[in-house]
Parts: sequence; C-alpha cells; structure tokens
Amino acid sequence: MGLSTAYSPAGSGLVPAPLARAARRRSVQVRRPRLATVRCSVVDAAKQVQDGVATAVGGGAASGNECFGVFCNIYDLKAEDKTKSWKKLVTIAVSGAAGMISNHLLFKLASGEVFGQDQPIALKLLGSERSFQALEGVRMELEDSLYPLLREVSIGIGPYEVFQDVDWALLIGAKPRGPGMERAALLDINGQIFADQGKALNAVASRNVKVLVVGNPCNTNALICLKNTPNIPAKNFHALTRLDENRAKCQIALKAGVFYDKVSNVTIWGNHSTTQVPDFLNAKIDGRPVKEIIQDTKWLEEEFTMTVQKRGGVLIQKWGRSSAASTAVSIVDAIKSLVTPTPEGEWFSTGVYTTGNPYGIAEDIVFSMPCRSKGDGDYELATDVSMDDFLWERIKKSEAELLAEKKCVAHLTGEGDAFCDLPEDTMLPGEN
Amino acid sequence: MGLSTAYSPAGSGLVPAPLARAARRRSVQVRRPRLATVRCSVVDAAKQVQDGVATAVGGGAASGNECFGVFCNIYDLKAEDKTKSWKKLVTIAVSGAAGMISNHLLFKLASGEVFGQDQPIALKLLGSERSFQALEGVRMELEDSLYPLLREVSIGIGPYEVFQDVDWALLIGAKPRGPGMERAALLDINGQIFADQGKALNAVASRNVKVLVVGNPCNTNALICLKNTPNIPAKNFHALTRLDENRAKCQIALKAGVFYDKVSNVTIWGNHSTTQVPDFLNAKIDGRPVKEIIQDTKWLEEEFTMTVQKRGGVLIQKWGRSSAASTAVSIVDAIKSLVTPTPEGEWFSTGVYTTGNPYGIAEDIVFSMPCRSKGDGDYELATDVSMDDFLWERIKKSEAELLAEKKCVAHLTGEGDAFCDLPEDTMLPGEN
Repeated sequence: MGLSTAYSPAGSGLVPAPLARAARRRSVQVRRPRLATVRCSVVDAAKQVQDGVATAVGGGAASGNECFGVFCNIYDLKAEDKTKSWKKLVTIAVSGAAGMISNHLLFKLASGEVFGQDQPIALKLLGSERSFQALEGVRMELEDSLYPLLREVSIGIGPYEVFQDVDWALLIGAKPRGPGMERAALLDINGQIFADQGKALNAVASRNVKVLVVGNPCNTNALICLKNTPNIPAKNFHALTRLDENRAKCQIALKAGVFYDKVSNVTIWGNHSTTQVPDFLNAKIDGRPVKEIIQDTKWLEEEFTMTVQKRGGVLIQKWGRSSAASTAVSIVDAIKSLVTPTPEGEWFSTGVYTTGNPYGIAEDIVFSMPCRSKGDGDYELATDVSMDDFLWERIKKSEAELLAEKKCVAHLTGEGDAFCDLPEDTMLPGEN
Repeated sequence: MGLSTAYSPAGSGLVPAPLARAARRRSVQVRRPRLATVRCSVVDAAKQVQDGVATAVGGGAASGNECFGVFCNIYDLKAEDKTKSWKKLVTIAVSGAAGMISNHLLFKLASGEVFGQDQPIALKLLGSERSFQALEGVRMELEDSLYPLLREVSIGIGPYEVFQDVDWALLIGAKPRGPGMERAALLDINGQIFADQGKALNAVASRNVKVLVVGNPCNTNALICLKNTPNIPAKNFHALTRLDENRAKCQIALKAGVFYDKVSNVTIWGNHSTTQVPDFLNAKIDGRPVKEIIQDTKWLEEEFTMTVQKRGGVLIQKWGRSSAASTAVSIVDAIKSLVTPTPEGEWFSTGVYTTGNPYGIAEDIVFSMPCRSKGDGDYELATDVSMDDFLWERIKKSEAELLAEKKCVAHLTGEGDAFCDLPEDTMLPGEN
C-alpha cells in the first residue's frame, strides 16, 4: 500500500508548507532562474532521493528546486493496484507555458488524452520572470483538476533547469512581432531564443528528446534549434504545420460535402507561412483522389490554399485574438501521430529536417512533408507521393523562402555571417 | 457508404457557401435573436428534413436557423461501419459560450471525454449580440479541431431557439458584479437572466433536460431557474459545487501527504459562497476517516475551509483572472458523475433541490449535498452520512443564507414580493 509510506517520518508527515503560505512567500520578484517543483508519488524514487528532493521541504533553493509540502513524500506506484501497470513517467517541457495555447495544451497533456491512460506525466513549465506568478496559477489549476496521471509539475524560467532530462520539449513561447518590426528582425530575436533553448536541450535533455517548435517562424526556429543540439538527432525536431493540415482537411470536407473524417493524406508542404502548400493532388476523400470528387479546379488551385492561409486572420477578426484551443488540439494531434501507428496508407504533415529526402527538396532546411510513424515517437517520410508541375512549382517557392530565411540566421546556426534578403512578408495572418 | 449521398443533388453538390464568404456576410450587426447552424451528418435525418434544415442553405432566417454549405447535407451514420454502433445524438446547450470557461469546456465536450467515444455531440452555443462574432470564432475553431464526434454546432442569442430539444443545458453565462454593486442587486440582475432561461427551457427543451447552473450566485440562480420550469422535474437542476469539492480534496491530500486520488467522500454542503461547508467528518483517505489520519483539528476546523474558499482569490492574484480551465474540468467531473455509476461507497457533491432530503435541511432551496448516481443522469442522496454539532452548525448557517437569498428573489420565483436582508457579503473571491 502506498498509504503506509504516506505517513512515514521521512515524508515529514503532517507538517507540510500549506500551499497558500508557500504561494505568498514566493510572490516576491524573481531575480534568478529557478525551478519550483511539485512532486506527487514519483515513479523513480531512488533518483528522487539522490536529487535531494525528498528532504528539501521548503528549502530547495540551493539545488534550484523547490519542493511543496507533502508532495515531496515518496511512495511507490508499483505497489499500488491501480498504477502498477503504468508506463515509466514521461517528462514534458512546455515553453510559453503561461500563454493561451499552453493553457489549453497542459490540461490535455495532464488528462491522458495525448499519451494514454497508462502513462504518468511530469510537466515542466518554462516561463519568464514576468509570467512566473501566472505559472504558479496554472500549477494551482492543474492541482485542482485532480488528474490521476499528473505526477509532477515544476515551473521555472531557466531552460537549463527546466529541460533537465525531458523526453519532449514543446517550444511554444516566442516574441510577437512589434509594430513596424521587420520580419528579419523577428527572425533574429526569436532565433536567438531558439538557439539558446537548443544549447540547453543539448546540454541537459534526454538524448532522444523530441522537440516540437510552435513559436514562429517555426520552421527556421526549428532549424536554429537543431543546429545548436549536436548531441541530439536532427530527426527529432519538428515544426508545427498540423493546424494548417487540419484547416485544409476541414475546407476540403466543406467543399466536397463530406464530414471531415473522410478526408486523409492532406500534406502541408514547406514553410509555415503564406508560401505553404496545402496539397490537393495527393489528398483523398474516402480513399479516392480529391480531384476526382472536387472538379472545381479553380477552387482547388486558388481559393483552397488562400482560405487555409487566411483562416487564422479571419479568426482574429471574429475572436479578437489568435486561435489557441484549435492550435492546442493540433499540437495534440501532432504528438499523437508520432506515438501511435499511422493507419495503413495514410500520413500526416510535420516540418522536419530535409536530409536525405526522396522528393528532391533542398537539403539542410526544416520543411513540412508527409510522414508516417510506427508509433515509437519516430517517423519515416511517405513514399507513395505524386508530384505534378503545379505542386512542384509551389513547393520550390516555399523552399526558396526557407533557404533565404536560413541565410538570415546563419549567425545563429554556426554558418558564418547572416545575409538577409526576404523579398516579401509571408507571415501568416495573426502570427506576426 | 455515406459518401454516395454526400454528392447527391439534394445537398447542392459542389456549390456550398464557402465559410469565409458566409462569415463576411454575417458580420453585420445582429438585431434580432437568431440561430446559425452548422450541421454535419445528422443522426435523425427525418427530423432534420422536417425542420427544413436540409434545404435552408444560406436562407434559414425565416426559421431562425442558418445552414452552412455542405454541412447541410444529410447522410446516415447508421450506414457507416465506424459510426453505426454510436448512441443517439446528445444535444448540449452552453450559455456564456464565448467566455473563458466555455472555451475550455466546449472542446472537452466535443472530444468525447465527457460522454464517451460512442456518443455523437451537438453543441448549441448561447451568447449575446456583443459576443456573436466571438461565437463564430469558437465555431470555426471547433471545426478546425476535426473532432469525429462533433456533429452539429449552432450559435444563437435567443434561449428559446438555442434550448430547443436540448438534453443538457450548461448555464455558465452571468453578469459579473460591477463596482459598488450590492449583492442583492446582483441577485436580481442575474436572477432575471435565469428566470428567463428557465421559461425558455420549460417551453422548448427536452422534458428530461439536465440543467447545470454555473453562473453565480449559482444555488439561488438554479432555484430561480427550476421555479420557472414547471414542466421539468426540479430534481434535474444542479448548481456547480464540484470545483469546491476538487479543491477540498486537493487540500486534504496536501495536508495528509497522499496523492489526491486517495481522497474520497468529500462533501461540499450548502451554498457556493463563503458559507459553504467542506465536510472533513465524512471524508475518507484510502477508505479511512480523514480525522483518523489528519489529527491537526485546528487545521481541519479553521484553515482547511478557509483555504478552499480562498483558492479562487489566490488564483486571481497569481493569474490575473478567475480560474477557467479548472472550472471547466470540474464541470466535466460534475457531468461525468451523473452519467457514470458512482463507485461503491463513494459520492460526489452537487447543489440540488432539497425536497424530501433525509438530513433535515430546509426544504425548497438548492443546497449542495452528497449524491450518488447509477449513471443514468439521475442521482440519489447519499444515506451513509455522519453528522456532528460542528458540521451541523455550519450547515445551518449556509442554509440560513440560502433562505435569505430566496426571500431576495421571491419576485422571480412566483412567491410574492422580494424582501432582501443579506447581512454579510459572502461571495467567493473572484466570483463577484
């Protein structure tokens, strides 16, 4: 029984720091990176003792960890009927954790809908000094949700601490573009963030960490990040294009008069920008080519892509802010596609490193392409893909843009001096 | 195959109103109640045809319905392998649908986590003229999420239209208290909303609709609502106290040094206000009475209740706004407790009508009490409940408050003239 250990003297029994008091104490301004940890029934008890967490009640400052009252107690999930068949704890870092997208995503991760009902979860929330109190609020709301699978929550503002041993890093946080800011300037500012986070991942994360970059411009941010992580396979880095894929599926369904679960094999090629290429050539409706069913070629070649690209802007007009809930859903979809086997004959879109791709896309960039997974977190590129001049021409345009973006950030990827010549502003509406 | 019907002439084939165009057209200011409907593969095709939805493409103004493009097509879920074993569509109305709590809740309802993976869902979103565009944004994000179970989404600002045939009404929307506003004035303003919504439910909802009132003051709002619905059983009305129960469980777990899944039988008695009574006498940790395990009586009798009540206020300080995600989680918990059988020996808290209660609580108010369910949406009051002087005295105080609130709203419940004498301000922090 886990209960018997719950009252052991080692756990300090009934003298926890009440949360409200701990919260007050920690409302002073944060001056240095730190990591506050709430731990609940940790799977790897030996490791935790080694880290000094169990005895660090309210006094974890020296180690950069803080331990909250009775959650510092240790007991053994393997001893409990309900939990003994559970998998090993998975540790997930989320940056921009106080933002709206994360506010949806964190609760989905904690609920088990992403990794399954036998997968205990540790969440490590990366924020800023400014957002630290909001992160504490998020942590409190996660506690109040009583999710059985959520076994650790920690918050911090230093990537070297937050990324320690993480299995997944969901990099959502990025600076928004200010008024009048050139896109090149944004690439530089955000690129620096992702270079720094890459260095931190390289130093402290799991050697097989999977990294999903959401903060924009996400393809080039992902490239910068992976260039700063020589110890982690470049294949492990993803740029989120799943929201574009989902929107494209919805628009095809609307046009064809079918429910969206009939639409498959929709690839988003290229950059998560207005040069992105939603692919209707390979897309299928109930297993049949979309072009057989939607014969309005003008719609497919013109309106379809524009509608997908403008969706975010229309939403902002309606809603007064960027999509958050549906972005979080698409992040869930992106992760689930990597941890569950892809159905026979289907694929999903994700921005990945182009080394050795069979399509003829330039090497050494992050490009959204059709992928399949065996469900092990890894992927392979889809092979049964058709190409025609119309599709290829647009793919080349997005490729050219990403090659130009890459030159803009050469100083961040260790490839010499940056040279930035971006002819057009191709940020998606609502993302600049 | 559903596909074959998807291209039938009846569905207008390939000439839908593209969403972006429909959205532009509908961005003019709304002058009258209306209901915009997105329908996808409706279960009850016969009924839909009868309602004229199938032929109302872009022209549903006369019927108060609007139909979006190809979603107006009809096909038969019973003909498809994936969906033929699904249950009958459940229709859920949500008021305050453009707010933050709903923004979390709607996606949970659509995902299937509340009603199960074989339960198709229709969402009917009730908003205001001011929030109508935001509701359109919510609808777009729900579409982009591609939830297979989500089969209808409609939006409107008139309760008589939105509540038509609904099986569940989740009444979240309420006016916040303005600066300097007396609580009695808030009771009157919000009471009027719930009286009107009650009348609408009485007129048009399913005769067995379940109603969960979240908008505050929720107990008395629920009482007002049920007093205006003579055709619907009073037993079907609930006031949300589940967030308080979840917070109480979390605090007991923190104090006892156990994970929160060990804590059960925590009742919130009474009003969702500072007179609420989190019950530690009947609460259990791993099946044992909490008082056997937490022997710090002062904490149980004083700090525990205050910490639970102040949780919302602390969150606002941290987070800069009221809890939304954890409130939505607690709404999900409250519904799941009614639609899944309660585990042997356990119970959950919900504010219900007190007629015939075995505890000796005054009749004819809405009081949070311990309930059990067979999973059919109905409940019975728990019988194996202990009482002592300390608990009873506090219950009587909350009862007195609810009786006083009831007198304040007599004009809204059909019981004569209101007489309002509320001695204290007992709104919970963050809810006034």
